[in-house]
Amino acid sequence: MFHFFCFLDILPGMSKLLLAGTVAYDSLKTPRGERPHILGGSALHAAVAASLLARPNLLSVVGGDFERRHLDFLQKYGDTKGIKIIQDGQTFAWNGFYEQDMREAHTVQTDLNVLLQFDPELPPEYLDSDFVFLGNIDPVLQAKILAQLPGRKFAAIDTMNYWIAGQKENLGRVIASADLLFINDAELRQLTGEDNLLRAARSLLGNLKYVVLKKGEHGALLISAAQVSAVPAMPLAEIVDPTGAGDSFAGGFMGYVVHSATSSGVDVDWDTLRAALVYGTMVASFNVQGFGCERLAETSKTDLDERLKVFREITRIN
Amino acid sequence: MFHFFCFLDILPGMSKLLLAGTVAYDSLKTPRGERPHILGGSALHAAVAASLLARPNLLSVVGGDFERRHLDFLQKYGDTKGIKIIQDGQTFAWNGFYEQDMREAHTVQTDLNVLLQFDPELPPEYLDSDFVFLGNIDPVLQAKILAQLPGRKFAAIDTMNYWIAGQKENLGRVIASADLLFINDAELRQLTGEDNLLRAARSLLGNLKYVVLKKGEHGALLISAAQVSAVPAMPLAEIVDPTGAGDSFAGGFMGYVVHSATSSGVDVDWDTLRAALVYGTMVASFNVQGFGCERLAETSKTDLDERLKVFREITRIN
Repeated sequence: MFHFFCFLDILPGMSKLLLAGTVAYDSLKTPRGERPHILGGSALHAAVAASLLARPNLLSVVGGDFERRHLDFLQKYGDTKGIKIIQDGQTFAWNGFYEQDMREAHTVQTDLNVLLQFDPELPPEYLDSDFVFLGNIDPVLQAKILAQLPGRKFAAIDTMNYWIAGQKENLGRVIASADLLFINDAELRQLTGEDNLLRAARSLLGNLKYVVLKKGEHGALLISAAQVSAVPAMPLAEIVDPTGAGDSFAGGFMGYVVHSATSSGVDVDWDTLRAALVYGTMVASFNVQGFGCERLAETSKTDLDERLKVFREITRIN
Repeated sequence: MFHFFCFLDILPGMSKLLLAGTVAYDSLKTPRGERPHILGGSALHAAVAASLLARPNLLSVVGGDFERRHLDFLQKYGDTKGIKIIQDGQTFAWNGFYEQDMREAHTVQTDLNVLLQFDPELPPEYLDSDFVFLGNIDPVLQAKILAQLPGRKFAAIDTMNYWIAGQKENLGRVIASADLLFINDAELRQLTGEDNLLRAARSLLGNLKYVVLKKGEHGALLISAAQVSAVPAMPLAEIVDPTGAGDSFAGGFMGYVVHSATSSGVDVDWDTLRAALVYGTMVASFNVQGFGCERLAETSKTDLDERLKVFREITRIN
């Protein structure tokens, strides 16, 4: 079921994917170098990742300082009608660095800027979105977006420790109204107070059908009430910048889900989600091989398919 | 190549496997309960694990306090001619506990006792061992054992942070004289000073041909100069006691290697080692489901084969 994504193109009239999240200017420093003021944010990374299999509609906000060339760049990867420009505001900016092991992002400064005025309102063209990915933003805003999509087919959300600590109740409500939650192991333990990852994930299930556990260099798990799928990360001898790995993983995952739902016509099933887990893993492995989305933006379906062949061999069980 | 291990029995005249390491009395406390004074040690866990596919020869030392019933127990899983009993000494004892997440063992007390007098001398019957696993003991002792086995076919060693910190040179020499090293990610980074696990492992290769990276709940990697194999851990909703997980993993791995070398007649190749990685993962997953080796000791080849079927499904890539 998997090999087809290398030659199938985006179909006319395929299901609509909405990606909501942040568009940011990141200033990064990793052991491999520095990049001041590059394009970042969860919506940006998810869009570049998803664009290989779908053309996402993007919902975000930027300031008057947002450069034309960056808007043009975004347009290459998705529809930008939903990118609100607040002329008298500044674009969300994050300044951070990674130490030698690159396992944790250290924040030097976060300027929320226009994010503070972000009141997500969907353009009419987006109201019939079948698939939705809500990147890591305020759960209250995530809820506002879902409320505008009563006819959606499948909603996935991401979050972070900041919201778990400060907005547990609101976050709990959004999680309960979504179909799939992307979360890392530390956040899952923080959210549930349960140390066993399987039990922790399953304690969240109900209306929520799936948890995708992101473990970075250790891979990912897809968990439902009755099933589990485990995928290692792609072993890489060189990582340049982990920023956006989780967002590109989620974007690639959702791109795959939309694409196969469109081409197969069937609803989202376990095999599709499991294949999406592998596809997201491949996409994220390219994302971390360059600063920001530099490397992923240059990645083709052929590159992905070739790496998938290698990955199959690495993970093959006789 | 894999499914055969469920019905093949141990063959007469199969290659000989030597397991050297500790036999201990452990006093454990985990979130699931307590066990004072139970049988433990690297040689014990490795022997029980290997015994499903091979009959190992055991090399270790115990004190006059070592109970007859425990010697009988050991005899069920391997040949005990190499278990030296120092009558006027006490058996090595470890007292430790695990916190809620069970990711780290905390030591309350370690009494080396007879280990301090351990001068490993192989019984004549062991001198033609083809395969050797040297559990975590003083690298000087590991070297003494290897020196008695010039005709060996394949030697694998394990170690721990204590020896990396205190005996780096001696440890380096033993590693360079072995074929395969079992090590966890923290130890590998400590030993090499390299954060990237692939590069760290490969920096040790030379005469050493393979590194097996043990990542506990995150699975394992098999690394050679040219290849990599990655296997997730078996997702478990309940872990009772992680003690000996790494030793049972290594013992199961070596049991599989000996068994398939015997039945295939060929030398150890990549496919055999990769299958051994999966087999070791299955064995370790049973080991952690009971205190000490309680659960693994009751595990049959059929149990392993059934879990392997589940594991294949969990890790299947379409």
